[in-house]
Amino acid sequence: MGKSEYGALADAMARTAENLETVLDRMIPTDQAAERDLMDAMRYATLDGGKRIRPFLVVQSASLFGVAENAAYRAGAAVELIHCYSLVHDDLPAMDDDALRRGKPTVHKHFDEATAILAGDALLTQAFEVLASDATHSNPSVRCELVTELAKASGAHGMVGGQMIDLKAEKVDLDESDIGAITRLQRLKTGRLIDFSAQAGAILGRAPSSARDALRGYTHDLGLAFQIADDLLDVEGDAATVGKATKKDAERGKATFVSILGAEKARDQANRLADQASAHLKLFGDKADLLRDLARFVVTRSH
Amino acid sequence: MGKSEYGALADAMARTAENLETVLDRMIPTDQAAERDLMDAMRYATLDGGKRIRPFLVVQSASLFGVAENAAYRAGAAVELIHCYSLVHDDLPAMDDDALRRGKPTVHKHFDEATAILAGDALLTQAFEVLASDATHSNPSVRCELVTELAKASGAHGMVGGQMIDLKAEKVDLDESDIGAITRLQRLKTGRLIDFSAQAGAILGRAPSSARDALRGYTHDLGLAFQIADDLLDVEGDAATVGKATKKDAERGKATFVSILGAEKARDQANRLADQASAHLKLFGDKADLLRDLARFVVTRSH
Repeated sequence: MGKSEYGALADAMARTAENLETVLDRMIPTDQAAERDLMDAMRYATLDGGKRIRPFLVVQSASLFGVAENAAYRAGAAVELIHCYSLVHDDLPAMDDDALRRGKPTVHKHFDEATAILAGDALLTQAFEVLASDATHSNPSVRCELVTELAKASGAHGMVGGQMIDLKAEKVDLDESDIGAITRLQRLKTGRLIDFSAQAGAILGRAPSSARDALRGYTHDLGLAFQIADDLLDVEGDAATVGKATKKDAERGKATFVSILGAEKARDQANRLADQASAHLKLFGDKADLLRDLARFVVTRSH
Repeated sequence: MGKSEYGALADAMARTAENLETVLDRMIPTDQAAERDLMDAMRYATLDGGKRIRPFLVVQSASLFGVAENAAYRAGAAVELIHCYSLVHDDLPAMDDDALRRGKPTVHKHFDEATAILAGDALLTQAFEVLASDATHSNPSVRCELVTELAKASGAHGMVGGQMIDLKAEKVDLDESDIGAITRLQRLKTGRLIDFSAQAGAILGRAPSSARDALRGYTHDLGLAFQIADDLLDVEGDAATVGKATKKDAERGKATFVSILGAEKARDQANRLADQASAHLKLFGDKADLLRDLARFVVTRSH
C-alpha cells in the first residue's frame, strides 16, 4: 500500500489488523496435552497473516452505526475464522494443492493433512461460538441474526458452494459468454463473505434497511473488483510479492475474468466496479471515506 | 434390536428415525446447477443412514419437558448434521481412510475427496443455521444457548479435539494405566455430542438445573458404555452386520477399552455403566423409561 496515496487507509487497516491479532490470539486455544497440534495448527492458520480485509469491513461498517469496538472485533474475528478455515481446506492436496500461503508453508505442509482438516473444522465451529456468545452483543436476536447470516454466507449456498463450482470449473472450458457463470462463482466463493462482513456491522448497529441496502450494493461491487484484481495478480504478480504461488489459474486452464476478458478489459472493469462501489455509500457522507479508499485500494494493490 | 426385549424402544427409535429422515430430507438442499455434486454428497452423507441415536436422545429429552416435537426434531437434525459431517471427514484417506460406512461406500469413495471435504464443511455450517433459525424456538436466548453448547461440544475442546487425540493415540502405546487418557479421548470424541443431544431437549424446555444435571450424569455414563460397546463390536463383529470395516483398531495397534481391559472386563464395565446411566434418571419417573431402555440397548446391540 503506497503510504502517500492511502495514508489514512493504511493506518486504519494496520490498526485493525493489530487489534484483530490480539483478539484472535486470546480467542484461539493454546496448547493442551494431547491435542496440542490441533491448537497449534489453529493458531498457525489464523495469527500473523493477511490484510484482514473482512474484519476491516466489519469494523468500518460498525463505526457507521456507533457500535462498540469490542463487539465489532468479535464479529470481525468470527469472519476471519471462517476465511482462514476455508484457506486451510482449499489448500489441501485434494483441493487446490497449495504449498505456500502468505509466504509460509500451508497448514498441511507444516503439520499434516489430518491436522489441517481438523484445524479447519475447529475454526469453522469456533466462528459460531464467538457470534453466539453474549460477549458479542447483549441482544440474543442480534446474535442469532449474525449466526444465521454467517452460516448462509459461508455454507452450501455461499462460500462452500462457490468453492465446489470452482473445482468443477477447472474441468470445463468457459468462454466470454460464460462471464455470468464466473460472476456467480465469485459471488458465492468470495462475495457472500465480503458482503456478510459489512452487514455484520449493520446488524450489530441495528441499522435501517436503507443503510443495509447501500452496504450490500457496495460489497457486491467491491467483491467482484477484489476478485478481478486477484486474477490480475495471479497473471502479473510474482510469488515473492503476492505471498502465494502465481500463474496457477493459467496452468490449470481455469477460466477467470482475465482469461475471458483479457488483462486490459479486466482492469477497466475492476476500476469501474470500484467507482460504482463507492457511489453506493453516498448516504453515509464522509464517515465512509475509509470504505471508499478501500474500494480504490483493492484494485491497485500489489499483494 | 430384538423386537421382544426392546419392543417399545424399537418402535420409538424407528419412529424417530423415520421422522428425522423427513426433516433432514426437507432441510438439506437439492441439486442446483453447478454445485449439484455438493448437494448430492450432503444428502448421501446424511439420508437413509444410522440409528439416529443422537436425535433420539434430543426427542426423548425434549419430551420430558413438553417441548414441541417440531423443535426437538430440528435440534435433533442439527446434531445429526454434525455427527454426519464428522463421519465424512473422519473417513477421509488422510484420517481413518475408510471405504465402507453404514454398508455403503464412504462419501469420498462415491464422489471424490474434494467433494467430501466440502460436503462436510457445508453440513457443519448448516447445523448452526438450523439452530439459529426462529423455526427452532421462538426465544432467541434459547437458540443462542443451543448454538453455543453445540459449538463447544463439537469443536476443539470437544469432538474435533477428541478426534485429534485419537489420531495421535494410534502412534503411541497405551497400557492399563492410561485408561484415564482413553476415557478422556472418548469423552471428547463421542461423549460431548451425546451429552449435548440430551441437553438440547432440556435447553428447549428451559428445564431446571436439577434436571439438566441428571441428564448430564446419564449421558456421561451412556456415552462411555456406547463407546466400549463399539470397541467390542470392532473386535467381535463382522463387517456385514456392523456395516463398516471391523478389526481396525487391532490392525492399527490402537489402544481401546477392550485392548486394555480385555473383552470380558470391558463388557462388565459397559453393563455397569448402563445401569449407572439409568440410575441418574430417577427424578423423571417412568417418563424416562425409553431412555433407560436405550442405555440397556447400547450395550447389547449387534450393529
